[in-house]
Amino acid sequence: MHAIGVDIGGTKIAAGVVDEDGNILAQTRRVTSPDDPASIDRAVCDVYDELSQKYDVGAIGVAAAGFVNSARSTVLFAPNIAWREYPLQDRVQSLLKKKVRVVVENDANAAGWAEFRFGAGREVQDMLLLTVGTGLGGAIVVGGNLVRGAWGVAAEVGHMRVVPHGHLCGCGNEGCWEQYTSGSALVRDAQAAVLTEPERAHRLVELAGGDSARLTGPHVTLAAQEGDPLAIELLAELGRWIGEGSASVAALLDPALIVIGGGVGAAGELLLGPARDAFANNLSARGFRPLAGFTLAAMGNEAGIVGAADLARI
Amino acid sequence: MHAIGVDIGGTKIAAGVVDEDGNILAQTRRVTSPDDPASIDRAVCDVYDELSQKYDVGAIGVAAAGFVNSARSTVLFAPNIAWREYPLQDRVQSLLKKKVRVVVENDANAAGWAEFRFGAGREVQDMLLLTVGTGLGGAIVVGGNLVRGAWGVAAEVGHMRVVPHGHLCGCGNEGCWEQYTSGSALVRDAQAAVLTEPERAHRLVELAGGDSARLTGPHVTLAAQEGDPLAIELLAELGRWIGEGSASVAALLDPALIVIGGGVGAAGELLLGPARDAFANNLSARGFRPLAGFTLAAMGNEAGIVGAADLARI
Amino acid sequence: MHAIGVDIGGTKIAAGVVDEDGNILAQTRRVTSPDDPASIDRAVCDVYDELSQKYDVGAIGVAAAGFVNSARSTVLFAPNIAWREYPLQDRVQSLLKKKVRVVVENDANAAGWAEFRFGAGREVQDMLLLTVGTGLGGAIVVGGNLVRGAWGVAAEVGHMRVVPHGHLCGCGNEGCWEQYTSGSALVRDAQAAVLTEPERAHRLVELAGGDSARLTGPHVTLAAQEGDPLAIELLAELGRWIGEGSASVAALLDPALIVIGGGVGAAGELLLGPARDAFANNLSARGFRPLAGFTLAAMGNEAGIVGAADLARI
Amino acid sequence: MHAIGVDIGGTKIAAGVVDEDGNILAQTRRVTSPDDPASIDRAVCDVYDELSQKYDVGAIGVAAAGFVNSARSTVLFAPNIAWREYPLQDRVQSLLKKKVRVVVENDANAAGWAEFRFGAGREVQDMLLLTVGTGLGGAIVVGGNLVRGAWGVAAEVGHMRVVPHGHLCGCGNEGCWEQYTSGSALVRDAQAAVLTEPERAHRLVELAGGDSARLTGPHVTLAAQEGDPLAIELLAELGRWIGEGSASVAALLDPALIVIGGGVGAAGELLLGPARDAFANNLSARGFRPLAGFTLAAMGNEAGIVGAADLARI
Repeated sequence: MHAIGVDIGGTKIAAGVVDEDGNILAQTRRVTSPDDPASIDRAVCDVYDELSQKYDVGAIGVAAAGFVNSARSTVLFAPNIAWREYPLQDRVQSLLKKKVRVVVENDANAAGWAEFRFGAGREVQDMLLLTVGTGLGGAIVVGGNLVRGAWGVAAEVGHMRVVPHGHLCGCGNEGCWEQYTSGSALVRDAQAAVLTEPERAHRLVELAGGDSARLTGPHVTLAAQEGDPLAIELLAELGRWIGEGSASVAALLDPALIVIGGGVGAAGELLLGPARDAFANNLSARGFRPLAGFTLAAMGNEAGIVGAADLARI
Repeated sequence: MHAIGVDIGGTKIAAGVVDEDGNILAQTRRVTSPDDPASIDRAVCDVYDELSQKYDVGAIGVAAAGFVNSARSTVLFAPNIAWREYPLQDRVQSLLKKKVRVVVENDANAAGWAEFRFGAGREVQDMLLLTVGTGLGGAIVVGGNLVRGAWGVAAEVGHMRVVPHGHLCGCGNEGCWEQYTSGSALVRDAQAAVLTEPERAHRLVELAGGDSARLTGPHVTLAAQEGDPLAIELLAELGRWIGEGSASVAALLDPALIVIGGGVGAAGELLLGPARDAFANNLSARGFRPLAGFTLAAMGNEAGIVGAADLARI
Repeated sequence: MHAIGVDIGGTKIAAGVVDEDGNILAQTRRVTSPDDPASIDRAVCDVYDELSQKYDVGAIGVAAAGFVNSARSTVLFAPNIAWREYPLQDRVQSLLKKKVRVVVENDANAAGWAEFRFGAGREVQDMLLLTVGTGLGGAIVVGGNLVRGAWGVAAEVGHMRVVPHGHLCGCGNEGCWEQYTSGSALVRDAQAAVLTEPERAHRLVELAGGDSARLTGPHVTLAAQEGDPLAIELLAELGRWIGEGSASVAALLDPALIVIGGGVGAAGELLLGPARDAFANNLSARGFRPLAGFTLAAMGNEAGIVGAADLARI
Repeated sequence: MHAIGVDIGGTKIAAGVVDEDGNILAQTRRVTSPDDPASIDRAVCDVYDELSQKYDVGAIGVAAAGFVNSARSTVLFAPNIAWREYPLQDRVQSLLKKKVRVVVENDANAAGWAEFRFGAGREVQDMLLLTVGTGLGGAIVVGGNLVRGAWGVAAEVGHMRVVPHGHLCGCGNEGCWEQYTSGSALVRDAQAAVLTEPERAHRLVELAGGDSARLTGPHVTLAAQEGDPLAIELLAELGRWIGEGSASVAALLDPALIVIGGGVGAAGELLLGPARDAFANNLSARGFRPLAGFTLAAMGNEAGIVGAADLARI
């Protein structure tokens, strides 16, 4: 059975017809307004109308950046779209001319599911996806099942606490993993280094056009790839936190594989090497099991479409 | 189908016939030697022979305090019994006169499963069991399934790190949750208080017969129940760590319920009250889901028998 | 011998003639420009000319918010005034018609010295002043002597690290004491509480005119004085960090008294009570010495004038 | 004026005549009993009688491993000798046939003073001595004066807290610097590494004769000097904590020099290199002052004799 996956971003939606092997057979896009949820509902119907003309589609999976209830029907809250307890499933279904199964999923869960089914995790049954972008999101697969939690809010991995009294998080708590493992953390630490080690931060400031306030994660990655010692250290520190936090997750869930996605993943082995070392140094029961692997996500930007479509079939 | 559950301790095994509703229909015991695994194999067969005379038994579940592989057949390592990569399933089955399904489970997993199926967690699908005894063990149920992990070593909850550079753990790492949430931690902190606040520790020392080296967890609980302010604080601190660590688990797994078992649970609300407060204060996304409940385990010492039997049916 | 003390602020200077008992005999002020150091030099001379007409003045002490070298002559750096390696002593002396001793002191050191000589610390020889304002500054008196350090940069108490990997400090390091013990920390934590405990934060938000971004330290203090539980907790937490950090200082310096100055001190016992408890609970060798006292600063806003004048006599 | 310095150990006392340049002109020893304070009093008199026959001695300085009151007369408590509020000065003076000035000093303070006056610190006025032995002791010199504190208990540097909720210290508190910077910490971490990284710990276990329980600090230093990567890491970690803790001290006291004494100092640059790096990375106001130096103690085992003698002259 083919299914449509829809990935809803802030200002546009991307959709595709996905077959049972995870292949995208056709794609389309629409522009939407984050302040107008109804525009998104209509756009989802619209892409269905378009894509279902050529393909026999049995279900629609919608990936949304927000908290989704465990019934997979309502977006409880979204940081960037005006959804508050929004019955997205109902709204879309009421607009569809034909009765089609519609399922709403958290976007990180959708991406993680795509990696699990068709990407980096397709050989394992227990997997942790860490999406290291501006923040730290993720998805958890346990025994071949996606972990959604009692109220649909599982896999908020970035909010596991790793440092008591640590950095303040946007969520209001202190010491969340996200504050040590994210692009924002990387930039914050790089800017602090500009202040405290100006001579070593020369290349970073140069890449930022002379203004450390304009420093970005890709600047750090570029400098590290050029061999800049400070940039390499900054990425290694981030990698170390990936590994240490993952060791805590492994104490709970014993995954076979940790998949690193998100923009910061572009640093590749500069990040994965230190992550592996730190994981090995902090894993409990390490003599009694193999070390989980660390690998980069394989599905690219279309993971949300593929995962949402696949989850809609379940 | 009835099943036999066998709970293997250091020097004895306890076994029972368990029906599909979790009722124990008959029980028996055997003395064994922890240094002689073959004595344990024989004892398991022996209790089967005894119990299967009166009851029609379709499976045997063996709960073992150790790491069990994900095929549920081999004990990889046990701290208190001479099992090292020990094929317990094979050994028992080769001794049985009749072919019966034999399944090996970690004892905390078995107990957690019993709580989930028939005890404190029977109304929920997502549950965390914390067994707060000498150490901190536990079990995790996600979406109605027991979490075993890729190599059978999941739910080593006591080894999630809660404090970087924190107390040294027996596992060789620093800052494991067990070092803050266990009877050993309680006694350690009580003994430190004897040193630093001798005047406030008067009742605790008295209960320990004048020698703080002989202080135990039950002494602290008793003093707290009498109203001793220091003992109440010590239990509240332990409860606080239960709540804070559980909030980190909840960021990953979003359980509906946290069940507290183990000897320290005897402190009841002196522990659960502070745990609930700390959980609420540290939970991410707390406005978007109910607070998970905290409750005491309900199955008592027979949880291992009941859970192992039930898991043998699956 | 009378001396003039000059307290240089961002946009004005306040000066007074101070006798050997710390009494201010006369005062005057001038408006200055922080971007124009020469305007400050002239203003210092000007107040000397005015005040020395009526009083016989033997020395001028200038209190400056910045790093002052150990020769007490040059401001190495100031955050709010355009002083960079600025030879303030030379500049002022070259403008004075009469040869008078001029000494430059860090403003927190001057205030601490005033408390030590004439204020809250006049009975002790070993004292720590903590100025809990927007940030955390202070002064240290050891054996009756002001501690200036090898390069004049001692008593940067706010930058003792209290939490590894803790909150990012404006200095570029993590976990500085200032990030846990200052008005900024108080406001940050209050704003986090608005996010995570909105129902309990009702009064705080109300005092901030409905907008938590406008919340200030005095709002928290006012709410606490009204009995608001959250505000009381927030101040107690700040007090706890005062006590815990002071216990670390006491391990090094064994002061008899900790004096709390700065705006946050207005909370009085709501702050000092928790500080005393935390100090007692964390002090090393506590059975072998009395507990240091905690008290509020006594000299008010004129401490800088009095202390600078007195230090100029030494 | 010559003075006698007496260094009181557990089972013997070592004494010497010291001239004003810190030279030891003659030495002698006595055996004593730690359980019999009177035997120590007599031995001090005895060495005075012996040494004063050939030298004109104006004062006796006694260095004692314990808390000494600020009047320098009474040992408040000693961990290894049966002194409890013991008036050592009075007892010795009452036994002396001739009236001689007797002064009691903490042994780490005496050693620090010797380094300051005649050893590694003779060029500076502000110095921190860290004695990294089994535990972490030290001495502080500020502006050329020894810091004794209000009650004589200053410079308990090992009990500055560096990790909230960190390792339990013998003092009853958590996270004391001593738990991260001492021979005991080094051995603890080495033994943990044997557990968690057995393959890398091969050389360490070998040096310990195959039994990690017999591992010592010198084993780690030896292995590191041979090039063993794990041992080098362990010393570097210890050095890192020296540097990080020293940066906190520097925020308070701005010393020009940090002198490392004690047995662990034998590791030399393997320790000092990482200490310097960590200090530089954590120092506040680092752009506005030179970096304090790190150097090894220069006075050897006789520092206590020399320092006690010199302090007796003051």
